Amino acid sequence: MESFFSVDSLRAFTEGIFRQMGYMAAEAASAADVLLKADLRGIDSHGLARLPGYVRLWEAGRIRVDARPQVVHETPSTALVDGDQGLGLLVAPFAMRIAIAKAREVGSGWVAVRRSNHFGIAGYHAMLALEEGMIGIALTNASPLVAPALALERMLGTNPIAVAIPAGEEPPVIIDMATAAAANGKLEILQRKGGEAPLGWIQDAQGHPTRDPFALQQGGALLPLGSRLETGSHKGYCLAALVDILSGVLPGAGFGPWVPPFVHFLPLPQDAPAGAEGIGHFFGALRIDAFRPAAAFQMHMDSWIRRFRAARPIEDAEPVKIPGDPERAMEAQRLQQGIPLHEAVVKALQALSARFSVPFPSPVK
Amino acid sequence: MESFFSVDSLRAFTEGIFRQMGYMAAEAASAADVLLKADLRGIDSHGLARLPGYVRLWEAGRIRVDARPQVVHETPSTALVDGDQGLGLLVAPFAMRIAIAKAREVGSGWVAVRRSNHFGIAGYHAMLALEEGMIGIALTNASPLVAPALALERMLGTNPIAVAIPAGEEPPVIIDMATAAAANGKLEILQRKGGEAPLGWIQDAQGHPTRDPFALQQGGALLPLGSRLETGSHKGYCLAALVDILSGVLPGAGFGPWVPPFVHFLPLPQDAPAGAEGIGHFFGALRIDAFRPAAAFQMHMDSWIRRFRAARPIEDAEPVKIPGDPERAMEAQRLQQGIPLHEAVVKALQALSARFSVPFPSPVK
Repeated sequence: MESFFSVDSLRAFTEGIFRQMGYMAAEAASAADVLLKADLRGIDSHGLARLPGYVRLWEAGRIRVDARPQVVHETPSTALVDGDQGLGLLVAPFAMRIAIAKAREVGSGWVAVRRSNHFGIAGYHAMLALEEGMIGIALTNASPLVAPALALERMLGTNPIAVAIPAGEEPPVIIDMATAAAANGKLEILQRKGGEAPLGWIQDAQGHPTRDPFALQQGGALLPLGSRLETGSHKGYCLAALVDILSGVLPGAGFGPWVPPFVHFLPLPQDAPAGAEGIGHFFGALRIDAFRPAAAFQMHMDSWIRRFRAARPIEDAEPVKIPGDPERAMEAQRLQQGIPLHEAVVKALQALSARFSVPFPSPVK
Repeated sequence: MESFFSVDSLRAFTEGIFRQMGYMAAEAASAADVLLKADLRGIDSHGLARLPGYVRLWEAGRIRVDARPQVVHETPSTALVDGDQGLGLLVAPFAMRIAIAKAREVGSGWVAVRRSNHFGIAGYHAMLALEEGMIGIALTNASPLVAPALALERMLGTNPIAVAIPAGEEPPVIIDMATAAAANGKLEILQRKGGEAPLGWIQDAQGHPTRDPFALQQGGALLPLGSRLETGSHKGYCLAALVDILSGVLPGAGFGPWVPPFVHFLPLPQDAPAGAEGIGHFFGALRIDAFRPAAAFQMHMDSWIRRFRAARPIEDAEPVKIPGDPERAMEAQRLQQGIPLHEAVVKALQALSARFSVPFPSPVK
């Protein structure tokens, strides 16, 4: 059960909610833009569906509207940002813009962030670098859902890796991927629809492969990319660990099992090491002409993209895609047709509407 | 059929061969160290087994002993290095040391390399940063063996990602992984032993999953990490693409299907875009205290490592490992017992011994 809403109407609604939480107009617009971009790109789990979750974290005192993120240490090419328990949707662009400014000055910029909250889709922040013609990188850790290879225990988030790379005439290459075999959002869709998961996404409470999408709530865990040891689940574990260390340990944020949960009703981890606070992120920006002339790079990127698009496909009807193609196609479609919201999401947003006296839009169909 | 050789005796032999090719003593020692480290860490496919391959590339004029790698462009935190068709085993440490020097100055250093050759194990170069207490990163592209998701065609190398992260009292976390479900070296072992590959490593010439380790020679391809679309092979494809773009496109090296093959008997790709030459690498170094005091980071890294080691295992007899543990255990064992070489490798090395008049050592057992 889905209804479609125009992007503009949902944007106005989302900004209205953030305004009522106490954010200034520019902040509300910026935070709403991150959520809307997720819905536009088809990453429905990270879009407006999460707005009630951010509100609940704010109510629980875990997100501070008056937060003032700031640089607490820096070198010419690096910075440590303290998020001051701010909304990740705002802390992340703040930090990414510092990385970009440093890249403008000294060729590259790298910013690690502690004491933040969930920042929405990683790809949004990486893509900010494209506006400057740079390569952008965004990583974040997240609350533990994934079991390392050989483990029963959930120790890592779905810890995404996002990289945006500009091209010339072709659209940019945009990678935005969870380091688990499947992100939790895909599982939630199956839970709503009552379907079974492919083998390789989840293990049950005994560590056996299962198709049950509810196994996670019954002591199971998501599996790292690679799914099984013999097909490389230790590699997915390595990638998730790398994201956790750069995003969490490097800045002094929570890490591993001590990353605070997104849902407000789960308690904060009690035994976290001292000085490891909040969710952590890691951002990077690389200036192309810090390596070679941008025009030459862009020409080769166009060749790369065209050659990969032309790779012989297994099925003629399914040509090889470039990272970012599916999301770009989805965005074009949703800009036209509107954003579909599941009825459970609509209900939750209508509750926010009533509570904050911000009118909820009518569907376009 | 394997015999064991002492590390010192193999090192002397390898240095002798490089000396006979015309390298100076320090260069020969440096190149040999990279190969020996692969054998010590158990990555047998990238150790002495490759020495004859480097010799053949040199004979074919594709590796120049008199190469003078140099920085052709730089900013405070980045550099482009032209490898001058040098031995990757030497070009890579040259470039990595530039990254480290820049990190010392401005917090981080990033070096992209073009016109190089195969550089051995990526982990070796990443680990150079540990000597300075820094995080090290090493990527390289390689000749095409891997089919992108949906593709029949081999378009990407097994393009490894290596990251070395220092800890405090605990040993460093060392990630060194191919972005394919399984590296080609594992396939070669099965080919020698006559075994079958797990499903998920290879597709045949029609794009169907196969267990045949020889399928690669019959029009098949290695699969990206994730193996199948529904378990995330598009993510493994994204990672391999990322490594190819940073290592190949960014510096102006060969990329995608145009990366030169390691084996001397395959022709160089003829239709490569102008200005895309040789194999490319990408190196990074991050100074810890460019973010926060090293002691605080090290303490948290030790917590990270200990907490992950203590994660509840699926089988009590198989505790959860930290990235780098298996290779560290292997190195300790081989330093004691010697390095095992397959008889086919021994034969090839004995042929080099005869030809270059460098005595080949006797096995220790």
